[in-house]
Amino acid sequence: MADQKWVYAFQEVEEAEKHVGGAWDGVRALLGGKGANLAEMTRIGIPVPPGFTVTTEACNAYINGGNKFPAGMWEQELEAMRETEKMTGKKFGDAKNPLLVSCRSGAVKSMPGMMDTVLNIGLNDETAKGMVALTGDERFVYDAYRRLVQMFGSVVLGIDDEAFEEVLDEYKKARGVELDTELEAEDWKKITAEFQKIVKKEKGFDFPQDPYEQLRLATEAVFASWNGKRAVDYRNAAGIPHDLGTAVNVVTMVFGNMAEGSGTGVAFTRNPSTGENKLWGEYLLNAQGEDVVAGIRNAEDIGKLKEELPEVYQQFLEITRKLESHYREMQDVEFTIERGKLWMLQTRDGKRTAKAAVKIAVDMVAEGLISREEAVSRVQPTQVDTLLHPQFDPTEKAKAEESGKLIATGVNASPGAAVGRIYFDADTAQKKSKEDGEDVIMVRPFTKPDDVHGMLASKGILTSEGGATSHAAVVARQFGIPCVVGASEVQIDMQNRILEADGKTVKEGDYLSVDGTSGEVFLGEIPSVAPSLEEQTELMELLTWADEISATADIRTAPEGWPTRGLMVWANADYPEDARRARSYGAQGIGLCRTEHMFFEPERLPIVQQMILADTVEERQAALDKLLPYQRSDFDGLFEAMTGLPVIIRLIDPPLHEFMPDEHKLLEEVIANRIQNKVDQKKEDLLASIQNMHESNPMMGLRGVRLSVVMPEIVSMQVRAIFEAAADVKLRGLEPHPEVMIPLTGHVNELHFIQPKLVEIAKQVMKEKGVEFAYKFGTMIEIPRAGLTADEIAGTAEFFSFGTNDLTQFTFGYSRDDAERNFLVKYIEDGILPRNPFQTIDIKGVGQLMDLTVKKGRGTRIELEVGICGEHGGDPESIDWCHKIGLNYVSCSPFRVPVARLAAAQSAMKNRG
Amino acid sequence: MADQKWVYAFQEVEEAEKHVGGAWDGVRALLGGKGANLAEMTRIGIPVPPGFTVTTEACNAYINGGNKFPAGMWEQELEAMRETEKMTGKKFGDAKNPLLVSCRSGAVKSMPGMMDTVLNIGLNDETAKGMVALTGDERFVYDAYRRLVQMFGSVVLGIDDEAFEEVLDEYKKARGVELDTELEAEDWKKITAEFQKIVKKEKGFDFPQDPYEQLRLATEAVFASWNGKRAVDYRNAAGIPHDLGTAVNVVTMVFGNMAEGSGTGVAFTRNPSTGENKLWGEYLLNAQGEDVVAGIRNAEDIGKLKEELPEVYQQFLEITRKLESHYREMQDVEFTIERGKLWMLQTRDGKRTAKAAVKIAVDMVAEGLISREEAVSRVQPTQVDTLLHPQFDPTEKAKAEESGKLIATGVNASPGAAVGRIYFDADTAQKKSKEDGEDVIMVRPFTKPDDVHGMLASKGILTSEGGATSHAAVVARQFGIPCVVGASEVQIDMQNRILEADGKTVKEGDYLSVDGTSGEVFLGEIPSVAPSLEEQTELMELLTWADEISATADIRTAPEGWPTRGLMVWANADYPEDARRARSYGAQGIGLCRTEHMFFEPERLPIVQQMILADTVEERQAALDKLLPYQRSDFDGLFEAMTGLPVIIRLIDPPLHEFMPDEHKLLEEVIANRIQNKVDQKKEDLLASIQNMHESNPMMGLRGVRLSVVMPEIVSMQVRAIFEAAADVKLRGLEPHPEVMIPLTGHVNELHFIQPKLVEIAKQVMKEKGVEFAYKFGTMIEIPRAGLTADEIAGTAEFFSFGTNDLTQFTFGYSRDDAERNFLVKYIEDGILPRNPFQTIDIKGVGQLMDLTVKKGRGTRIELEVGICGEHGGDPESIDWCHKIGLNYVSCSPFRVPVARLAAAQSAMKNRG
Repeated sequence: MADQKWVYAFQEVEEAEKHVGGAWDGVRALLGGKGANLAEMTRIGIPVPPGFTVTTEACNAYINGGNKFPAGMWEQELEAMRETEKMTGKKFGDAKNPLLVSCRSGAVKSMPGMMDTVLNIGLNDETAKGMVALTGDERFVYDAYRRLVQMFGSVVLGIDDEAFEEVLDEYKKARGVELDTELEAEDWKKITAEFQKIVKKEKGFDFPQDPYEQLRLATEAVFASWNGKRAVDYRNAAGIPHDLGTAVNVVTMVFGNMAEGSGTGVAFTRNPSTGENKLWGEYLLNAQGEDVVAGIRNAEDIGKLKEELPEVYQQFLEITRKLESHYREMQDVEFTIERGKLWMLQTRDGKRTAKAAVKIAVDMVAEGLISREEAVSRVQPTQVDTLLHPQFDPTEKAKAEESGKLIATGVNASPGAAVGRIYFDADTAQKKSKEDGEDVIMVRPFTKPDDVHGMLASKGILTSEGGATSHAAVVARQFGIPCVVGASEVQIDMQNRILEADGKTVKEGDYLSVDGTSGEVFLGEIPSVAPSLEEQTELMELLTWADEISATADIRTAPEGWPTRGLMVWANADYPEDARRARSYGAQGIGLCRTEHMFFEPERLPIVQQMILADTVEERQAALDKLLPYQRSDFDGLFEAMTGLPVIIRLIDPPLHEFMPDEHKLLEEVIANRIQNKVDQKKEDLLASIQNMHESNPMMGLRGVRLSVVMPEIVSMQVRAIFEAAADVKLRGLEPHPEVMIPLTGHVNELHFIQPKLVEIAKQVMKEKGVEFAYKFGTMIEIPRAGLTADEIAGTAEFFSFGTNDLTQFTFGYSRDDAERNFLVKYIEDGILPRNPFQTIDIKGVGQLMDLTVKKGRGTRIELEVGICGEHGGDPESIDWCHKIGLNYVSCSPFRVPVARLAAAQSAMKNRG
Repeated sequence: MADQKWVYAFQEVEEAEKHVGGAWDGVRALLGGKGANLAEMTRIGIPVPPGFTVTTEACNAYINGGNKFPAGMWEQELEAMRETEKMTGKKFGDAKNPLLVSCRSGAVKSMPGMMDTVLNIGLNDETAKGMVALTGDERFVYDAYRRLVQMFGSVVLGIDDEAFEEVLDEYKKARGVELDTELEAEDWKKITAEFQKIVKKEKGFDFPQDPYEQLRLATEAVFASWNGKRAVDYRNAAGIPHDLGTAVNVVTMVFGNMAEGSGTGVAFTRNPSTGENKLWGEYLLNAQGEDVVAGIRNAEDIGKLKEELPEVYQQFLEITRKLESHYREMQDVEFTIERGKLWMLQTRDGKRTAKAAVKIAVDMVAEGLISREEAVSRVQPTQVDTLLHPQFDPTEKAKAEESGKLIATGVNASPGAAVGRIYFDADTAQKKSKEDGEDVIMVRPFTKPDDVHGMLASKGILTSEGGATSHAAVVARQFGIPCVVGASEVQIDMQNRILEADGKTVKEGDYLSVDGTSGEVFLGEIPSVAPSLEEQTELMELLTWADEISATADIRTAPEGWPTRGLMVWANADYPEDARRARSYGAQGIGLCRTEHMFFEPERLPIVQQMILADTVEERQAALDKLLPYQRSDFDGLFEAMTGLPVIIRLIDPPLHEFMPDEHKLLEEVIANRIQNKVDQKKEDLLASIQNMHESNPMMGLRGVRLSVVMPEIVSMQVRAIFEAAADVKLRGLEPHPEVMIPLTGHVNELHFIQPKLVEIAKQVMKEKGVEFAYKFGTMIEIPRAGLTADEIAGTAEFFSFGTNDLTQFTFGYSRDDAERNFLVKYIEDGILPRNPFQTIDIKGVGQLMDLTVKKGRGTRIELEVGICGEHGGDPESIDWCHKIGLNYVSCSPFRVPVARLAAAQSAMKNRG
């Protein structure tokens, strides 16, 4: 181990490559994202302050070795310091020409604000004096020194930052000033001394004067922060593995606050909100980088730098262009200008809004920078979902504005419309959302990493401070939560739990509407509208490429006779208007039309109840005869809208008591009558009928195909309606492709019983109408036994469609109606379940059964069409599983179709044979 | 095909053996049971009338060939007739010396009364005259002739038998006589002519005078009867495959009604009711065999034959002894004496009561006839169950007798006590039993094969006519239904649907108590008592042999490390008294103690409710502290009773609302109060609490381990009680083996969450008490996902126990509380399910999942103990599956333990490697 290389200077990138076998991913894993990029920038001749990276391997060795540096590491770090001294001509701890460094964490995946940083390491009472002599700027030096003591105290030594802030506030009050900038050199000197007293008081020892002791402790603190609560929470939320470790980057300090011609800033090579191909960023003159990121001072637009420091701006422009073409990705950079000299402190792939992600990907294809496949792989399916998130209805928004409900405008940090009750801290926000099921808007002056759990639980975020690159903005964009930051008109009174803006007072728990797209904040609730896909031309183009990828994917690993292309995307649609939307969103078929929804319409429900309560077969038939024309016309529209594409219609599924009046309400009425000696025989009878239909566990009761076996008249009517409609549509010159789906099959004999009867009706109708067209009869797979005996069932069923909602219910034995409230939320919180199995397919259990089902089914009928029509059909991770086990299509709600198209294409690429 | 041998004369048994490759089973399959035994008797020199058998292969060829004789068959039948003519010296159709034959069906498995028979084939107007000349007995000849016309008419030509009976009745009325025996030769001659007219009238053609035409049509009728409704129903009920086919036996007629010294009878080589080793049977002089079987005339005890025909009796005794030692089984024989000459017409393994089966098997071991293994394999597990069926409480029976409720005594045809409402026809009996769930006693003058469906649906059977070998008696014994036949005091008035006996009138729907063991019939309902196993010494001995077989079974096909012996039998017992009974019945452990049953006891329930409704953890703990001593003392008794044997205790399983007052009743009270403006706040609060606990599908809700995760205090108390009790028992010098079972696990993380906490308590208690003993923690497998992920779960669980009730519920998605009422009964009736999956494991679905579970579980933990504790643990067919998939034990109710011990041994023999 002592021979292992734990530390790489930035100029040693080739050696790092060699160590990991050459791959860039390997270099990133070894040096962390920040370290790898600092080294890479060094290699391509971009000005980076000299420094080095202690590897993630060292971090893991430290953690696994009982929090001890691995043998040889510290010696290598000391050697790297000597190299840095050589390159800078300065000397660490030398009062005459002191080298100062920062110590920053750098994980493989960027985790903004998660890891800790200590600046100005190397300052002590002696070197501070030396710095003053060198720079002649005592104020600057003691400001830097107090920052070191403060950061070192809080980050490395674990002292509450409030302790330092309090002293500072009191000092300012005593001095009668408000801003830090109003303090003088002498003030900072005194404050530094005060800060050192805090360290002594809190820890019992002096602030370490030995620069190497500072460096050693800071390095350890970075390592330890990997397993800090904030970092672990973030990784859990973002799905980042916990065993990657973090690297430590030690970088020569450069100062944006060192006199004139100095400054610091952050920028994106393209607009991260719109995707526009134009440099976008902020800077502050005479400031340190953290001032920009924290959003404490309002920064200038990067464009203004052209006027203030034109040469530096020109150089910066060239550097960012070089970076983008080098990385073939939009970059997010940090820079510092020290006395007119530009230093790049960081570059990384820039986070962006969904809209920007799509535009940048499509633009880069046009620019010849990347291929279509790369473009498709660069947009996350969840980002597409964001693009289809509701926006406020423009008319309603205008009305709200006219009536004076617009109370503030801030920075439009993350797009989308959010409506909810406001809460002023993360814990309350999370509690109200998770436990009470409220829609929550979290409101804070600004956010910190500690607040992430509340942000993730919120529908929207509003801060009164900070800018477009502040913590709140970055996190909100990443997770697709609508967010407005820096709404400075908003005054937050944490004591009284109210906010005031525009002369109005809003109490905690009241409603606000937040428009992350425009940055506007409104009183009360504003209705929102669904976005139009058609207007998003870049997205349309990207999805077309995605479809091409899916269609031409060569599934070479599939067994003979299985699908040889990627997944198709179908939609669940009950009505013609849904079907039309689904088709316009790119659906290639209808995977599920729920016929019973039609039964609930007001004019039909009484007929349905009449049918259910019928005493004789004749009465029942009479009611069904009345329902037939309704059903036929529903199906007619559906077949017309989907002409040329398959339409799967599911026969009646729910238990009949769902169509009856509420039992409890009726019971109360009847009891009331009885006590008052009134008799309403009709109600008594109705109650008796409903009570007779009562089931202890209706989810496992008389529904689906069981209903058809016991009462075949209903499905006979439905099949007649389906085929009459299809025949009519065919006669109008269109191409109906009906597929009749039998729900809840558990035993092949259920199909043997009902399917031939229904096929007979289908043939009869075609004969009556004098037309012929292709059709299929198939079944849902939602009962575990159906999966286990899929080989038998496929002997009769011509297609399978996984009903993963019910399949999950039965495989887990969870009642979906009750589980979330009673235990499921707790299970997910406690990590008993890694995620909600009703949202993402439980691959180990339900997924395993699905895999078995497909193999058994196709073993009997090689051409078996298999799809999924549960909620999971629109979930990217679930879609990936569906691809892996060889389904033909996924079917989801029309709004999720674009998401699914992208996810399907990405699966096809990812799992290419 | 024309070359194939379709017909075998009785003396050609060696050729038949050669055709099938030598095995006796093959000969039986080819010739049918009756034909094979006739041939075998011929071979060993027992007097059998000459004849031949047309094979089952011919029957199947006939059915599969579109109801046509296969090529060559008829020619072979004619050739066999010529051989029979040679042997008898008579000639078929020859008026001077006519050969008459019977044509009988003979299936592989005996199906009493199911198949059709035609006697006296060969008689026509001419040969009848010849027979008269030969025998000088015109009355006998025309009685025989009219029987032929009648049987041929009804059986072969399908004319309703009523048509013939009506004519006969009217004739007798006109002649002023009551009994057939009062009719003279001339009468029978006229009746024969009348019968021929019926044939002409019903069918439009004359009764065929050509004997070969008679034979051909009769042969076809036997073939066709294989697929008659009666036969199909019987096979469905008895589980006999439908593709075996029947043979046709053509046998020279001998006449038990041909003058003096003639007679006919049936006998068993041992008593089929008690098993006593003594010839047992009945005969009638001057009668045909059907008279005995139909029970129309009351027959004489076989012993009396010794006086009437001593030489024949002696010969018969020798023959029956020879048959029993030849077949090494108790035989059921039919014989006819024609003018002093004894002919054996049939032999077959005799059906017997459960009691007789056990006694005969054990006796035959003592006699050296069979081995212990054979003895064990000769008793059906369901027969053992019968032996444990209730008997009437002797005191109560005596009381009933004293108070004049004993109204009739008949033949004790099938033992056991039955209480039920009486119904007078099979359809009503079946309807009342199946649809209304009534306990039914079917009452008939006598039964016919058409009645079987009603008999199978009844708890008991009573007939006023017939003897111990009548149809009712045979069927009842076979299916273990208590039955009294020939209760001649009972007058049945079908018109008014009443029965009269001993001056009392009983209406249809009233209760009777029928004692099939004693033959007594009582008014009203008599309480019954459980039989004592200890008193049944033969059964005890047989079960000991069974246990030896299971224990020493060498499961050579099992994977390395799996159980190498047959199944152990454990019992489900909640209380010490159950455990003691289970142990006395041979249980080798407790597979399931349901702890929550203890919660329902009156003095505990209020504490349980207090615990559930507790607002604070402290309140809850206080209630649990009160429950602890109760639970501890329950477990103490259990461990004491089972010292040295494992005791699996299941932690609380049901949802908590099961312990609360009924929601509906409370709701009615509260509504009533509200309407009357009364307020009972306590009830309002209780209702609100209960409503808050309401679940849509409680079976899939907050129960089992889910409850333990949400509220670990209850199981913590239970585990403390278990280990405190075990420690106390250990300190008393006994050997407790506690195994703690966690119910409803679906994900290994549930065990990760709760099991370590509980193990900690176990260790703590042992430390407190200062003792140590071995223990296990394991889980039920009742959630499909648990089976699918058994590899993961076995990493934590030390044992598995299949809860097949719930596993069947979830795998099928059937709510057991609702399914039977709503669709399951219909499913079984319609053949959608071959049997009730809650009674017998559904091997294709649930069974497959169990197999997978065992393999995955042992893949992780080779020594994993796996058992079953669902209802299926006492079902022989399910036990066989449990053996095949390698379980360690089955656990069932104490009363089923003997059944399971026998079934386990039989499985071990059957599946021997």
